Amino acid sequence: MVEKGRDVETLTVGDLVSIPFNVACGRCRNCKEGKTGICLRVNPERPGGAYGYVDMGGWPGGQAEYVMVPYADWNALRFPDKDEAMARIRDLTMLSDIFPTGYHGCVTAGVTTGSTVYIAGAGPVGLAAATSAFLLGAAVVVVGDNNKDRLEQARSFGCETIDVSNGEPRDQLAHILRGEPEVDCGVDCVGFEAHGHGTHAGDEEPATVLNSLMETTRAGGALGVPGLYVTGDPGAHTRAAKQGSLSIRLGLGWAKSHSFATGQCPVMRYNRQLMSAILSGRTSIARNVNATVIPLNKAPKGYTDFDHGMAKKFVLDPHGLIPAA
Amino acid sequence: MVEKGRDVETLTVGDLVSIPFNVACGRCRNCKEGKTGICLRVNPERPGGAYGYVDMGGWPGGQAEYVMVPYADWNALRFPDKDEAMARIRDLTMLSDIFPTGYHGCVTAGVTTGSTVYIAGAGPVGLAAATSAFLLGAAVVVVGDNNKDRLEQARSFGCETIDVSNGEPRDQLAHILRGEPEVDCGVDCVGFEAHGHGTHAGDEEPATVLNSLMETTRAGGALGVPGLYVTGDPGAHTRAAKQGSLSIRLGLGWAKSHSFATGQCPVMRYNRQLMSAILSGRTSIARNVNATVIPLNKAPKGYTDFDHGMAKKFVLDPHGLIPAA
Amino acid sequence: MVEKGRDVETLTVGDLVSIPFNVACGRCRNCKEGKTGICLRVNPERPGGAYGYVDMGGWPGGQAEYVMVPYADWNALRFPDKDEAMARIRDLTMLSDIFPTGYHGCVTAGVTTGSTVYIAGAGPVGLAAATSAFLLGAAVVVVGDNNKDRLEQARSFGCETIDVSNGEPRDQLAHILRGEPEVDCGVDCVGFEAHGHGTHAGDEEPATVLNSLMETTRAGGALGVPGLYVTGDPGAHTRAAKQGSLSIRLGLGWAKSHSFATGQCPVMRYNRQLMSAILSGRTSIARNVNATVIPLNKAPKGYTDFDHGMAKKFVLDPHGLIPAA
Amino acid sequence: MVEKGRDVETLTVGDLVSIPFNVACGRCRNCKEGKTGICLRVNPERPGGAYGYVDMGGWPGGQAEYVMVPYADWNALRFPDKDEAMARIRDLTMLSDIFPTGYHGCVTAGVTTGSTVYIAGAGPVGLAAATSAFLLGAAVVVVGDNNKDRLEQARSFGCETIDVSNGEPRDQLAHILRGEPEVDCGVDCVGFEAHGHGTHAGDEEPATVLNSLMETTRAGGALGVPGLYVTGDPGAHTRAAKQGSLSIRLGLGWAKSHSFATGQCPVMRYNRQLMSAILSGRTSIARNVNATVIPLNKAPKGYTDFDHGMAKKFVLDPHGLIPAA
Repeated sequence: MVEKGRDVETLTVGDLVSIPFNVACGRCRNCKEGKTGICLRVNPERPGGAYGYVDMGGWPGGQAEYVMVPYADWNALRFPDKDEAMARIRDLTMLSDIFPTGYHGCVTAGVTTGSTVYIAGAGPVGLAAATSAFLLGAAVVVVGDNNKDRLEQARSFGCETIDVSNGEPRDQLAHILRGEPEVDCGVDCVGFEAHGHGTHAGDEEPATVLNSLMETTRAGGALGVPGLYVTGDPGAHTRAAKQGSLSIRLGLGWAKSHSFATGQCPVMRYNRQLMSAILSGRTSIARNVNATVIPLNKAPKGYTDFDHGMAKKFVLDPHGLIPAA
Repeated sequence: MVEKGRDVETLTVGDLVSIPFNVACGRCRNCKEGKTGICLRVNPERPGGAYGYVDMGGWPGGQAEYVMVPYADWNALRFPDKDEAMARIRDLTMLSDIFPTGYHGCVTAGVTTGSTVYIAGAGPVGLAAATSAFLLGAAVVVVGDNNKDRLEQARSFGCETIDVSNGEPRDQLAHILRGEPEVDCGVDCVGFEAHGHGTHAGDEEPATVLNSLMETTRAGGALGVPGLYVTGDPGAHTRAAKQGSLSIRLGLGWAKSHSFATGQCPVMRYNRQLMSAILSGRTSIARNVNATVIPLNKAPKGYTDFDHGMAKKFVLDPHGLIPAA
Repeated sequence: MVEKGRDVETLTVGDLVSIPFNVACGRCRNCKEGKTGICLRVNPERPGGAYGYVDMGGWPGGQAEYVMVPYADWNALRFPDKDEAMARIRDLTMLSDIFPTGYHGCVTAGVTTGSTVYIAGAGPVGLAAATSAFLLGAAVVVVGDNNKDRLEQARSFGCETIDVSNGEPRDQLAHILRGEPEVDCGVDCVGFEAHGHGTHAGDEEPATVLNSLMETTRAGGALGVPGLYVTGDPGAHTRAAKQGSLSIRLGLGWAKSHSFATGQCPVMRYNRQLMSAILSGRTSIARNVNATVIPLNKAPKGYTDFDHGMAKKFVLDPHGLIPAA
Repeated sequence: MVEKGRDVETLTVGDLVSIPFNVACGRCRNCKEGKTGICLRVNPERPGGAYGYVDMGGWPGGQAEYVMVPYADWNALRFPDKDEAMARIRDLTMLSDIFPTGYHGCVTAGVTTGSTVYIAGAGPVGLAAATSAFLLGAAVVVVGDNNKDRLEQARSFGCETIDVSNGEPRDQLAHILRGEPEVDCGVDCVGFEAHGHGTHAGDEEPATVLNSLMETTRAGGALGVPGLYVTGDPGAHTRAAKQGSLSIRLGLGWAKSHSFATGQCPVMRYNRQLMSAILSGRTSIARNVNATVIPLNKAPKGYTDFDHGMAKKFVLDPHGLIPAA
């Protein structure tokens, strides 16, 4: 009369699983509270571990043939049926990182049925956030960037777009939203490496996206900030940036009663339900981010292309297991 | 820099609005808490007022050429653009009652991205709940009823269906969900007038839907109960039913840590965001519930057809203002 | 700059810990969602394991010199300082079960700053719920029972009380609350073994507490139901009770838009913060429930006294480690 | 069987009421969502109206014999019993502003049972936040300031204190919290007019409190920011401050997954429940903030004393109605 569910079986060799980019112990206070992005045990330096990040615990990155997964019975999300999973494997690869990260940005920005949403950044995380916004029932999803290919990619699945090199997002929003220059929810998928969103094109302006989002988000709205801000950037030009200090127009956000949610996404909080959405065909995350499978030896070129702004999300397939689309 | 928004203008003659079926004052504790379904001021008998209900404050029903709307500046939802609204007027009529009611059932049942949902009842509220479940990102939406036309209607927009006259919902669910006989979320869109959902076809069995939902909802799941349960039914056959007592297998729900949310939907909590979803074309509620516009003098026949189980939601158009579809 | 916190150290021999009465694996979907009361892995029969319960996984009870704790790194709550903990050990023993259970009842009933609360039952769980209600900021805490000693115990720490053998709780509430016969929040700390709360004193009336709470809780209020309801009671007198069916006036709760939260408390969701409240001296749970330490060989007499309604919570101390109060 | 509650009666001449400092219409989207601090209708300049603020709608301040209250049936909180209210009138005066404001700061910082809390600022709002933290069940409440009288006042009701002129709050916290230099929750009750909290005593350092709170709040914690930050300060010394830009170490907060909640308190969200806590004697807000009643003609001196850092909250009593304490 009362069921155990299919997910209780023990992990065994040959299972197909998704591993979050966060490394987490599953036993500390933060893990127990669902905050697996800031696990207290896996990083002697500070809360939070991740594969392949500087300062995140020294866990080698996942761009490899094999990866060691600590606390695997906690961290792994087993796909319930291997054949079913292989049929959607491009989509499912996105569960490790960008799909939950974009979704987290939207959830913390309060995106729900009928919301208007402005997403700063049309890179893979921005496109994943846009995909998530639709999944959460948003009425209008606007994506801003200055990369025309990425904006074209955003339009390909129903987003409105703003080319931030063409002027103030507020003015462009007003055209899209019939006079309203503000949205309900703002998501920062750019982070500190922003280059002139809004009027300040050109130099790196680490606070420009946040300041712009405070302008374009309505009073009472919320900002999700999955985009990375660093504690300090030794290579920055200014003393403030070296210390990770940003010149933020907090008074503007305060006048609008904005709330801000920051930090790395706790992937485990979302990956099961996003898996379920993928397996039931409710979302096409791989298509939306233009997922492109490459072998491991093409990874360096993939990184180069990506750095040059190519509107693709590269998926590494070391063993050639992913079937052609 | 900070906007007022379009919705602040005062109501004026000629505005097109949606009026919730709840009558609410906008000043009492419950209204201030968003609980407009149980307003403390509009009904001398008990909390909660509504048009055309016995025991709900004596407000004449809305099936008329004109209706008096108390506290109209609080209760009315003005459509921002009249032409835009007329283009979706069939959908927008559903904002007064069944769309928010179905949505409330899903929200209180915890429906979110990736959920599996079982909705008991394929009448207009059940179909509105199914529509809402998709809008909320559900992975699988299963609707149960014994009316074949209504089940056909549910299948027309992507629902799985269960004919409850064919046996236990749990067994049929297991076929749909690859072995899982339980869903994440259960929604009761039937209420006390149930006739044998599950094994007990035939007589009115007021608790049969709730008992069935406790069987088909997983441990840790939630039940939304927008379906009406009455405080007493003078025409009932048994003394228990006369007193509104139901024979509920509460121990089963308790063992599964179920939660239950009951009562009439506070329409105002949801109608603005559902309006936004309609106006942006994200949902087709009118098509899904098979909305059929009739003039006022056809209302008696409409009620008769509906009572006979016709899979239509009739919309009364006293002044012939709704254009042909 | 960013700290790890004191709780990250590995468990070692000699640590003083609190073990929840729930047995949970820490790896299944429910555990990851914080629903450790319905763990999917530790009980082959159904979700949820516990020490010493029939039907809860076969884990021997904790009334023993030693107990085996599976998944101890997940289940154990280590006290940060042993000396500090020994100074409050009577209070801390309550973290395994009744304190979180009473607290869960209040949280799910919506108790918060300024609430009026009615707690049905003045046994240890009811007194723990009352203690929790004060901790949550309740304005007025009313406890109902028919055991005069237990009611006296409730009054000893500031509760108002209702002797349910003296008439309807609604009437008595109106005396306490200056005319209001209803509270904001209702907590059922009795469960199915109720004996005439309200007018029906005498026989076991398994639904009487729930029906009474729907009468005494305001429209828009919530009911927390930590009191045990069984899926079936083979020893019951009626067929309905044998099947776990209760005659519940659901229509009354529905008219008031009540919500209901049921099931065993997931202790881990609350025990760390309650530990913190104890260690800082914010609450006196042991005094409030009249905790009485006895050696293991006095346990049978303790059970007998308890069954006879003695207003004490017995704490077993097999090794004589708890210092005199 | 179902009650209307005492609060439904219409306002009449002679009623004793509390009026929030926010002016709100009760009909716009934000008011309906409970965001009365950013009402869309009462201020032609921007969302949000308030008595006696520059830029908040032009409503004359409440330091007067009489005040006009627009939308009074929405804005007024009527005390249920006048005699009862007069007995606690000093406490009840705090419901208009600082008590809900301090409470809002704590709620948005996540303060709950067992929390450790650091409150920056021991002025009236800071002391109200500390009072609220205890009401919410906090285990340890630490207040930081450099005004010794105000710190003494904080200690008078159980707070720990930090004199920020004596060194880094983190180091002092570690002394108080047995080695932990971080708390669960941070509340900024200072705002942009900060003068050297932490190492930077002396000049106005508008971001110093926020930067300090990010240092002293644990990873996964939240910051409530009821302290005022302005959109621009024409009298500021730096160009950044003139524009309301602050040099914030956002990267530090981001690394700790902090969330931030800003803006003026929506008083109506909290004032009823805080009234209930006051009337039941659960809190002594007037004593904690050292409320001091003065006649209207002493108001100028009161403001001067307050600006000089006197640890008093002055209450104006134009008609001499408040009885001696």
